[in-house]
Amino acid sequence: MSDQSAIVLLSGGLDSATCLAIAKAEGFNRIRTLAFDYGQRHRHELQAASQLSEKFGAIEHRLVRIDLRQFGGSALTDNIDVPKDRLCSTEIPVTYVPARNTIFLSFALAWCEVIDCNDVYIGVNALDFSGYPDCRPDFIRSFQETARLGTKRASFTIHAPLIDWTKAQIIRKGTELGVDYSLTHSCYDPSPDGLACGHCDSCLLRRRGFTESGIADPTRYATPPG
Amino acid sequence: MSDQSAIVLLSGGLDSATCLAIAKAEGFNRIRTLAFDYGQRHRHELQAASQLSEKFGAIEHRLVRIDLRQFGGSALTDNIDVPKDRLCSTEIPVTYVPARNTIFLSFALAWCEVIDCNDVYIGVNALDFSGYPDCRPDFIRSFQETARLGTKRASFTIHAPLIDWTKAQIIRKGTELGVDYSLTHSCYDPSPDGLACGHCDSCLLRRRGFTESGIADPTRYATPPG
Repeated sequence: MSDQSAIVLLSGGLDSATCLAIAKAEGFNRIRTLAFDYGQRHRHELQAASQLSEKFGAIEHRLVRIDLRQFGGSALTDNIDVPKDRLCSTEIPVTYVPARNTIFLSFALAWCEVIDCNDVYIGVNALDFSGYPDCRPDFIRSFQETARLGTKRASFTIHAPLIDWTKAQIIRKGTELGVDYSLTHSCYDPSPDGLACGHCDSCLLRRRGFTESGIADPTRYATPPG
Repeated sequence: MSDQSAIVLLSGGLDSATCLAIAKAEGFNRIRTLAFDYGQRHRHELQAASQLSEKFGAIEHRLVRIDLRQFGGSALTDNIDVPKDRLCSTEIPVTYVPARNTIFLSFALAWCEVIDCNDVYIGVNALDFSGYPDCRPDFIRSFQETARLGTKRASFTIHAPLIDWTKAQIIRKGTELGVDYSLTHSCYDPSPDGLACGHCDSCLLRRRGFTESGIADPTRYATPPG
């Protein structure tokens, strides 16, 4: 098989871990993973990203440091409380980090330019999600076009295989592909030793996904969800 | 006059300084300037950016640190020589920094989200330029559309007033608006004390612009251009 190179944006959460497994299953055999230390509340997801990258045989894992705290404006990067036990608000929630995926994809694009790679995987999901504008299909399509115009890439594809899946579908697919979800971290507000809070948006969506998938939830919770 | 807020990407060079003056002349009275320490070869342009921001009464100047050296791939961020005395190559030159403007605009967008600002100025120029793909009008238009789709902004405008001007036109406009070009820094490869090399692409374009504009060139050169 010829070399098939891809960059996978890997946060260490359930979605991006599944995305990594899918990239591998789709024939990419030279996968590089990219994580961001952007001033988020905790480092547990960064450790998860590094472990998952190794587990799936990525040829390189890179951690980019960018300080989004200096802009703030999100419960994940500012002194704003993470909301608990209230899913499915129709508004964009305070956990939305301004322009985060635009920034992440821009760095992936820079790396693509240097290593001559045309494929980026991102685990965005527009169904069981928190209403973030930068997880919508229109945004992804538009960024892909912008990237082609703004670089030397004649061809550039953003793969967002999870975009219209339910969380349960994602979990079933990942399990089939060998993702060990006990290694992933989704919680926005974990305990100091990395236990999930069980009550933030991300925990609620993850929990519901496991329940609906019929697969046992390996997440270690500080307070078991109700 | 009501508050008119804008963010100006300010590298400290001739183009972005002119762009800042234009933003002010177009009625924006709450201007924030944004510069990047991205691992470029020297800091002289960052000092220039800070001085220019103050000179034009920006209400805030912010310096964002991002390490593009870890990706490399450019004479400005890697161990690649800056080409001298050969302008107007038809290829994309080695001073092109992969995805730089995409990354810069993404950070500007993040800041816009937080301060509720709809206007960003960028001094890209597609005429007297070095052939960078991320300076083309199509790229700017496309990024603007991507930004609207990926954020909470209902309205978002990227102003690129210099995009189809010659360097001479830029210099004449800036001079008319009070830009002191001795404060700006364009050289890719200055001497340790900040004198322009006079021979890189950026120096050659700048020098020709002053000659064609009929305005005296205040640039301090290490070696006077031929």
